[in-house]
Amino acid sequence: MKMSEGVEWTAHACALLAALPRGVGLPAAALAEFHYLAPAYMAKHMQALARAGVVESVRGAGGGYRLIKKPETITLWDIYEAIEGEEPAFRCSEIRQHGPCTGTGDFRKPCEISSVFSRAESAWKAELKSVSLADIVAEVARKQTPTKRAQLTQWLREKLA
Amino acid sequence: MKMSEGVEWTAHACALLAALPRGVGLPAAALAEFHYLAPAYMAKHMQALARAGVVESVRGAGGGYRLIKKPETITLWDIYEAIEGEEPAFRCSEIRQHGPCTGTGDFRKPCEISSVFSRAESAWKAELKSVSLADIVAEVARKQTPTKRAQLTQWLREKLA
Repeated sequence: MKMSEGVEWTAHACALLAALPRGVGLPAAALAEFHYLAPAYMAKHMQALARAGVVESVRGAGGGYRLIKKPETITLWDIYEAIEGEEPAFRCSEIRQHGPCTGTGDFRKPCEISSVFSRAESAWKAELKSVSLADIVAEVARKQTPTKRAQLTQWLREKLA
Repeated sequence: MKMSEGVEWTAHACALLAALPRGVGLPAAALAEFHYLAPAYMAKHMQALARAGVVESVRGAGGGYRLIKKPETITLWDIYEAIEGEEPAFRCSEIRQHGPCTGTGDFRKPCEISSVFSRAESAWKAELKSVSLADIVAEVARKQTPTKRAQLTQWLREKLA
């Protein structure tokens, strides 16, 4: 089971957008360039994020994608869900309802196996919901070296000119 | 992101095997029949379980697949891992190492985004590891109706004859 690369790409792209002044955005091409990623795929992933209401596209000079909400209110779960959808990874197909030993057939409650996978996914989701883009930006800033900060300032000056 | 149907199928198959007397097995065809599943796919999934050391194949009369270890020591994680492999769903490709703003490049520690996804998968894995086949058999037995128990006894009598 493998998550789309789009989750990693857009998580980094949104962390970059979250570090910009409120209301400022960047085109998908710049978001791709920031980590030398394929621009066409980045554009596709950012469109998925826009459809999910995590970012919005702004036209014209200084246009591009910007976060719709404050970085404090956007979590890694929101980004995962925008790319992968909200359906759980384990999809119970109720196989217990078929076969020679189904009994009298009371299937109102989920079976034990399905319940355990649901609990596991809830625990996973809770971790992703517990970290916001603001948390990530704060952590990245804390570790940032002067060299990297200078590179970032220069690069952003060019892109936002 | 979607888990293979093989996880659901083999979890149910192993729960059935766990309910049998120690050392007794069932052929893949019977495990498929128990929930009216496609025999060829069930055989493929059971082979994966055998390769992972969860079950073993026994030839001859009364042959088939049986659990290698006690049901108390086999968890839903073991079954998941046998079918899907041990690689995490989120595979960090270290995109932070590429781009115009990589700074002086100290990448020894995982980045914050990768760390959060790792923590989420650890929480998920811990839940799957916390439930054994013995737990599932006990829960299923607790809810079993007399009709279902009678059907199961009759069906097993035919299969194990």
